[in-house]
Amino acid sequence: MKIKNFICLLCIFITTAISTRSYGQHKDLVVRIAKLVIDSSQLDTYKMLLKEHAEIAVRKEPGVLTLYAVYDKEKPDHVTVFEIYASKEAYRAHLLTAHFLKYKNGSKNMVKSLELVETLPIALESKFKNAG
Amino acid sequence: MKIKNFICLLCIFITTAISTRSYGQHKDLVVRIAKLVIDSSQLDTYKMLLKEHAEIAVRKEPGVLTLYAVYDKEKPDHVTVFEIYASKEAYRAHLLTAHFLKYKNGSKNMVKSLELVETLPIALESKFKNAG
Repeated sequence: MKIKNFICLLCIFITTAISTRSYGQHKDLVVRIAKLVIDSSQLDTYKMLLKEHAEIAVRKEPGVLTLYAVYDKEKPDHVTVFEIYASKEAYRAHLLTAHFLKYKNGSKNMVKSLELVETLPIALESKFKNAG
Repeated sequence: MKIKNFICLLCIFITTAISTRSYGQHKDLVVRIAKLVIDSSQLDTYKMLLKEHAEIAVRKEPGVLTLYAVYDKEKPDHVTVFEIYASKEAYRAHLLTAHFLKYKNGSKNMVKSLELVETLPIALESKFKNAG
């Protein structure tokens, strides 16, 4: 085998290995963005409920990996939650937990609208450690 | 002091302590959502550029804490990046890095629109470890 052919084959092998690893590492994840509009008069109560829910879900459920909940500075009644679950099964299990049902039932009269956007990851890079 | 008054005071103290801690732990963070629409014909190239940028920024810059970049399943040209920086200074420093400028200049003809939404955190809970 000529050295040129060998280098070509090596390049193909490395490219395949990298791309397989790149797609493989996130293939089971469920990554979703929830966009909510909240009744302004109940915003503080809603935020407490959501914060409690996020803390319990990530701490207790192995498959709830990330719940990043924020509200817009300009429109404080607009809330966004960036959600990562380990798999569809983990997400389904999450919907049956006592803490999720407490949040869902407790907030049903506070949520004016809810849009769920299913997404696929391009990059999920983080070294953030919650000081809480 | 009556026991009822003591309990009231204790509750006020605990609530204040919890809320101070809760606001204090994230007070310097810059948390932002970037919403982009990308030229469909250049989507694959754009995603590679963004992925490379996110990996380098989080690895190299101490103040770039999170870059979660995803695209909508239904509208693959709609990209969202959830960004956490340690402070305003960290964000400003980020804008001057070689990798950011490479991404920004490299993608300028691919980005059809860009909306930056400044946000404040409600909860930032995560145990996600990137396998990459």
